[in-house]
Amino acid sequence: MARPHPLSGFPEWLPDGRVVEQHVLEVLRRTFELHGFAGIETRAVEPLDQLLRKGETSKEVYVLRRLQDDADGAEPADRQPEKQLGLHFDLTVPFARYVLENAGRLAFPFKRYQIQKVWRGERPQDGRFREFVQADIDVVGAGELPYHYEVELPLVMAEALGALRDVGVPEVRVLVNNRKVAEGFYRGLGLEDVEGVLRQVDKLDKVGPDSVAALLQDEQGATPEQAKACLELAEISGDDATVVERVRALAASYDAGTDLLETGLDELGALIDAAARRAPGVVVADLKIARGLDYYTGSVYETVLVGHEELGSICSGGRYDTLASDGKNTYPGVGLSVGVSRLVSRLLSAGLVTATRGVPTVVLVAVADEATRPQSDAVATALRARGIAADVAPTAAKFGKQIKFADRRGIPFVWFPGQPGDTGHDRADDQADDRADDRAGDQVKDIRSGDQTDADAATWEPPAGDLRPRAVAVARH
Amino acid sequence: MARPHPLSGFPEWLPDGRVVEQHVLEVLRRTFELHGFAGIETRAVEPLDQLLRKGETSKEVYVLRRLQDDADGAEPADRQPEKQLGLHFDLTVPFARYVLENAGRLAFPFKRYQIQKVWRGERPQDGRFREFVQADIDVVGAGELPYHYEVELPLVMAEALGALRDVGVPEVRVLVNNRKVAEGFYRGLGLEDVEGVLRQVDKLDKVGPDSVAALLQDEQGATPEQAKACLELAEISGDDATVVERVRALAASYDAGTDLLETGLDELGALIDAAARRAPGVVVADLKIARGLDYYTGSVYETVLVGHEELGSICSGGRYDTLASDGKNTYPGVGLSVGVSRLVSRLLSAGLVTATRGVPTVVLVAVADEATRPQSDAVATALRARGIAADVAPTAAKFGKQIKFADRRGIPFVWFPGQPGDTGHDRADDQADDRADDRAGDQVKDIRSGDQTDADAATWEPPAGDLRPRAVAVARH
Repeated sequence: MARPHPLSGFPEWLPDGRVVEQHVLEVLRRTFELHGFAGIETRAVEPLDQLLRKGETSKEVYVLRRLQDDADGAEPADRQPEKQLGLHFDLTVPFARYVLENAGRLAFPFKRYQIQKVWRGERPQDGRFREFVQADIDVVGAGELPYHYEVELPLVMAEALGALRDVGVPEVRVLVNNRKVAEGFYRGLGLEDVEGVLRQVDKLDKVGPDSVAALLQDEQGATPEQAKACLELAEISGDDATVVERVRALAASYDAGTDLLETGLDELGALIDAAARRAPGVVVADLKIARGLDYYTGSVYETVLVGHEELGSICSGGRYDTLASDGKNTYPGVGLSVGVSRLVSRLLSAGLVTATRGVPTVVLVAVADEATRPQSDAVATALRARGIAADVAPTAAKFGKQIKFADRRGIPFVWFPGQPGDTGHDRADDQADDRADDRAGDQVKDIRSGDQTDADAATWEPPAGDLRPRAVAVARH
Repeated sequence: MARPHPLSGFPEWLPDGRVVEQHVLEVLRRTFELHGFAGIETRAVEPLDQLLRKGETSKEVYVLRRLQDDADGAEPADRQPEKQLGLHFDLTVPFARYVLENAGRLAFPFKRYQIQKVWRGERPQDGRFREFVQADIDVVGAGELPYHYEVELPLVMAEALGALRDVGVPEVRVLVNNRKVAEGFYRGLGLEDVEGVLRQVDKLDKVGPDSVAALLQDEQGATPEQAKACLELAEISGDDATVVERVRALAASYDAGTDLLETGLDELGALIDAAARRAPGVVVADLKIARGLDYYTGSVYETVLVGHEELGSICSGGRYDTLASDGKNTYPGVGLSVGVSRLVSRLLSAGLVTATRGVPTVVLVAVADEATRPQSDAVATALRARGIAADVAPTAAKFGKQIKFADRRGIPFVWFPGQPGDTGHDRADDQADDRADDRAGDQVKDIRSGDQTDADAATWEPPAGDLRPRAVAVARH
C-alpha cells in the first residue's frame, strides 16, 4: 500500500503528543473524581431519530450502515429511518438517554463525568474536527435540581483546567451569562421574540454593533431605543457584584425591570460572588454571550484560553430545565463540556506543552550478547516489580548503538548487567532469573549527564521526575 | 421521549460496572507501560478500501455517510468507494496504517499499546458485540523483528491478565501454536494446500475428528494416512519441552520432517521453555489451534479463562511477517489483543467481580442549613486538596436523609461540620473558606460501623482501602 495521508478533520497524535493528551485527560478525570463525579461511558451510536431531535445539528450526523446490507439488495430493516443508527455528535444526548434508560437504577442527583470521542460531519478547519474527544461533567436531578449546582460546576471546570497551568496550559477565563437575565430584560423592553433577539446579538463579534442595531430593527421590529438597550446590555461585563448593579440600573433607565430579570440577576450575582471567593479572577460575567441561551434555561458558560481567544470556547455548557423527560418524570441538569482535542491540538501546534519523552520506559537494559538476554530480562523484571518501566534492548548490538536506541526515544537510563557473581558465564542463562540480585557489577548510566554508577536492580530508584513521561511547559525565550 | 431500551450488541455499564471496567483497563495499561509500550490512539475511521483488504471481514464493516449528503441529492465525493469511510473493526489495520503514515517519525522496533472501541456489524450473541473495547499490544520492526518478541508478548499479556486475579478474574491459559510447525508438517506429509487443511482442522471442536478426517479426504484430497497424521498432530498439547519431542517423533513416524518444521519447533520450544520459567503453568502449546494460522506467519496465541472456555478466546494474536508494507519497506510485527468488553461482560454477568461502590466519593459533607453550605463546601475543598474525594449534600435535608443519600451510593463516610469557633453563626458565610480548620466540633461518621469521631478536615485520613472505589472479587460460598 502507498504511504497513507492523514484524513483532514480526524486528528491523531504521535506518541509524545499522546503523552500530553493523556496528562490532560488524567488531570480532568482526577479533578472530576475528587468532586464526586462517577465515570460512565455510553455506546458511540444512538438511534438516528433521537439524534435529530435538535434540528440544527441534523446535518452534522454520520449515519451508519452495514456494508452487508448493500449486498443483500432488498431494503433491510436497519435502513428504516427509525432503526438507523448514527454516531453521537456530543455526550449530552447519549447521557440524557442513559439517564432515562437507567433511571430506576441511578441515585439522583446523579453526577457523572464522561470522556469520549464524538463525531460531526462538519467541514474541518482550525480547531474544528470531524472526530474529537470531549470531557463532560453533568449533574442531573429527578424532578428538581438546586441552583447551587449552577455555581459549582463551572468552578469544578475552572479548577480542572487551572490544574493544567503548571504544564504550560494558558490561564482560562470562564464567561457566564444567564438566560433569565437576557429574557427578562428583553421582555421588559417589550421584545417578545427572545430567540430572535439572541440570534442577532450573537452576531456582535462578527458584524459589529451598528449592524446588529440595524438587524434588531429590520428583522425583530425593535425601535431604535430598544435596539440601543440590547446593545448596552451586551456591553456589560465584569467579575464582581457591580455587574448586577449595572444591569439593574440599565433596566431601570429603560423601565424594563421584570421578576424574571430579578431572578436571573440573583442567580448571576450568586455565581459571581462564589466564584470571586473560590477562584478569584477566573469567572467573568459577560452579558453579550448569546449562543447557548436559546436552548439553556438558566446559567450558560463559555471558556476561553487567555491569549488564544480566537480559538473560540474550549469548554461550554449551561443549565437545562429538561435534560431528559420520559413523560412521567423530568430530569433537569447542568453541565459543561471540554473540547479536549481542540485544547490539545492548540497546546501542541502552538508549542506550549511538550512531553519529556514519548515512551513510558525509564530504563533500557542493555544486552551484551544473545546468550545473556535472560539476565537482562531478569533485571527488567526486577525493576518492573518495583514500578519502574523497563525495556530490554532488541538486539545485542554494540553498546554505543544500544545507548543511541535509548537516546532516540528519550529513555533516560541504560542499565548494563554485570557478569554473574559466583557462577560461570556459561551457566548464567539457567540461573539468571533467580539471581538478579546476586550478580556483581551491574551499572546504570544516566545518558543525559553521562554519569555511570553501580546499581542493584532490587533497590535502585530513578529520580521521581523521571519515573513517567510527563507533559511539561515549553520554556519561553 | 418514551423510556429507551438497550441496543442489542452495544453494551453499556452502570457506574459500578464501569468501576470494574476501569480497573481492568488500568491494570492492563499499567502492565503495558511497565514493559515500555507507548500508548497511542488512532481515529475510529479508515478508508473503506483499506478495511476491505482482508476479504473475510468485509461484511462486518459499518460504513459512514454524512446525513447532509443525502439531502444534497447528487452523488457526493465521499460516496465514491475509494473515499468512503468505515469504522475500524480491529486495532491492527489502523495501527499498520499509522506505522506507514508516521514511519519517518517513529523509532523501530516500535512497541505500542492501544485501548479503543471497535465496531463489527455482526449478529450479537453472548460474548459477541457490535461495539466493544479492545486492548492491543504490538511490537513492529522496520525490515526485521527478532524472534524473542514472539516469546515476550504473550508473557506480557499473561502478566497483565494475571494481575487481575486478586480481584476475582479467573486464571488464564495462553494456548500457543506456530504456523511453521503446521505448514512444515503438512508439506512434509505431501499436503500442499496448507490453508485448506487448516480450515478443516479448525472444525475439530465443532464436528469431531471423524468428520474432519472425512473432510480432509473429500475436500483436500488427503489419503486416510495423511488425514490421520493431521489429527494426531492436532491432539498434541502440553506445557513443557516434551511437546516438541512428540511432534518431532510424529513427523519422523510419517517421514514428514522438513526444515520449516524444525524452525517452527525450535521457535515453539523456545517459547514454551521461557514461559515455563517466567510464568509456570500459564502457557500451553496446543497444536490444534488453526484459526489465525492462515494469516499469521509464526507464533499464534489464543487465551481462555479457565472455567469459562466456552466463552472463546479473550486474547488472541500472533506474528505477521508483513504487518504493513509501503512497497519500499516492510514492517513485521507481533501482537495480541484483549477483548475487554467480552471479559468485563463475563466478569459482571457471572458475578465474579463487583465494585465497592459506584461513585468516587469517600466523604459526603452534610449541610445543616443552606446558610452554612459555604462551610460544608470549605470542608470538601480541604479534603479534596489532600486527594480525598468529597461531595456536599444536595440539600439541607434532615441528617437521616443525608446519611441515606450516602448509604445508597456506598459512600463510606458522612462529615458533620461543627459550629464556627470564635465567630458568630451569622458571620460563617463570609469566613467559612478561610477558617475551615479553625472551627470546633467537626465530626465524621463511618456509616458502615456507625462509629462517629471528632475530625479535622486538614488532617483526617480515610483507611487507604476506602480512598477509591475498587473492583473486588465476589466471595464464593
